[in-house]
Amino acid sequence: MIERLAIIGVGLIGGSFARALRERGLVGEVIGCGRNETNLRRAVELGVIDRYTFDPAVAATHADVVMVAVTLGATGEVLARVAPVLQPMAVVTDVGSTKAGVLALAREALGSRFTQFVPGHPIAGGERSGVEAALATLYERHRVILTPAPETSATAVSRVQQLWEAVGARVSVMDAQHHDEVLAATSHLPHMLAYSLVDCLVGMSDSGEILDYAAGGFRDFTRIASSNPEMWRDIALQNRVALATMCERFEVTFRYLRSALEQGDGSSLLQLFERAKAARDAYLTRSAKS
Amino acid sequence: MIERLAIIGVGLIGGSFARALRERGLVGEVIGCGRNETNLRRAVELGVIDRYTFDPAVAATHADVVMVAVTLGATGEVLARVAPVLQPMAVVTDVGSTKAGVLALAREALGSRFTQFVPGHPIAGGERSGVEAALATLYERHRVILTPAPETSATAVSRVQQLWEAVGARVSVMDAQHHDEVLAATSHLPHMLAYSLVDCLVGMSDSGEILDYAAGGFRDFTRIASSNPEMWRDIALQNRVALATMCERFEVTFRYLRSALEQGDGSSLLQLFERAKAARDAYLTRSAKS
Repeated sequence: MIERLAIIGVGLIGGSFARALRERGLVGEVIGCGRNETNLRRAVELGVIDRYTFDPAVAATHADVVMVAVTLGATGEVLARVAPVLQPMAVVTDVGSTKAGVLALAREALGSRFTQFVPGHPIAGGERSGVEAALATLYERHRVILTPAPETSATAVSRVQQLWEAVGARVSVMDAQHHDEVLAATSHLPHMLAYSLVDCLVGMSDSGEILDYAAGGFRDFTRIASSNPEMWRDIALQNRVALATMCERFEVTFRYLRSALEQGDGSSLLQLFERAKAARDAYLTRSAKS
Repeated sequence: MIERLAIIGVGLIGGSFARALRERGLVGEVIGCGRNETNLRRAVELGVIDRYTFDPAVAATHADVVMVAVTLGATGEVLARVAPVLQPMAVVTDVGSTKAGVLALAREALGSRFTQFVPGHPIAGGERSGVEAALATLYERHRVILTPAPETSATAVSRVQQLWEAVGARVSVMDAQHHDEVLAATSHLPHMLAYSLVDCLVGMSDSGEILDYAAGGFRDFTRIASSNPEMWRDIALQNRVALATMCERFEVTFRYLRSALEQGDGSSLLQLFERAKAARDAYLTRSAKS
């Protein structure tokens, strides 16, 4: 049970967290914090938060749990504002898509309060955003990865883990570096490929006509190229080392494919396609079961 | 109105064509031809075809329209079997995903009957396959591209165009080479990227764990990597020149992105992401309207 929850950044992710806890009766008061008053007012109307402030320090004062759900670019600043007012037993957590960078920022911004910070990443979301889209069920059966540092308080980790589990998520704990490598592979690289594909087509002289003949496969494949550009710039930069390594690794496979193609080597192409199809079909079976 | 329609290859594509014409009362008798008797019997039960044969020549005898809906690899052989029995006023058409290669095969296989062949490509389909999935509505509002050669009979082209339009498709006529370039960009390259991404992840030591953390974006992005490997080997090989050119073009964009990433050049990344998002969003708006 949380007496006072501070949600810094009341959008889809922060709003859904508040809603999910509230619907399960796990939270007393919810204070929202953001910069857009229309959005904060709407969050009050929707019952996602009880009241709001524009100041992260005001929101965090007397809060037992502070959820930071702002962009990666704003996280350091928010943590620095929150640090001086943090209760000794309070926990702070975040939802950023990269974790090593957030840990470094938090270590600097929080100082002696750093042990109370539990970096987290709920693997959920989608194309919709904003508090209007917030759902009490968003995290059910979704994965959340926590990436504590060696000095992070074990009590704080277990507190945050319990909250995520209470709203239906499946929680894993891993090293921040490993998180960033895993996400570079499954999320960040696919986004780079989708953005690159669309940008590559845009650059062609007959791009308008070309897109007219795109079918459903193209729509699905490029869905993630409609994601927020600023958010993805921040993610790419924050995770640039792991992501650049994955990009290189992808280029090796892709060059192998192109070379098989140029040589008319049907059996190498078939093997690659079969391996990929088998792996994706197995992944679908696993994820449908879990 | 078609008196006798021969469908060589009674799967999703051929079956849907027959169903769509039948439902609109545009066809008399439909003869199916294939190699799998269970499938052909099922097609009769479903009312997609009236009777069947294993011999393309038997199916095509006395047919006024011959629809060849077999794999690219089998198309040449089917056309060679059909050529000797073709009625002088009959038209033959196909549904292959690449067109310059099919034109070359058809020119050789059909000889003096080549003028009666109208190469076609309905841009429809999906993950499901087989006659069970055949739908009378599959082609409604979908695009069909016809790629006649200079010597193709104009009457034959207009006949095939009318049939596709009758079942709700929007027909375009273009040069086979241009078709192959357009499809390399919007369909074949995305498939190569999806197969390569999955194969790249499969090759990583912790691939099982990595895929456990894949979310919805990954599922959509890799959907096309679950496509039929033999079919895609054939498409890739048949369209290898245009596709290899597109692969190279993609690699240029992707290397540019990776270099911006490595240099921490956020403004170049943002520009690329914004350009791609704007183009994809505009494409969605256009395709929703059309």
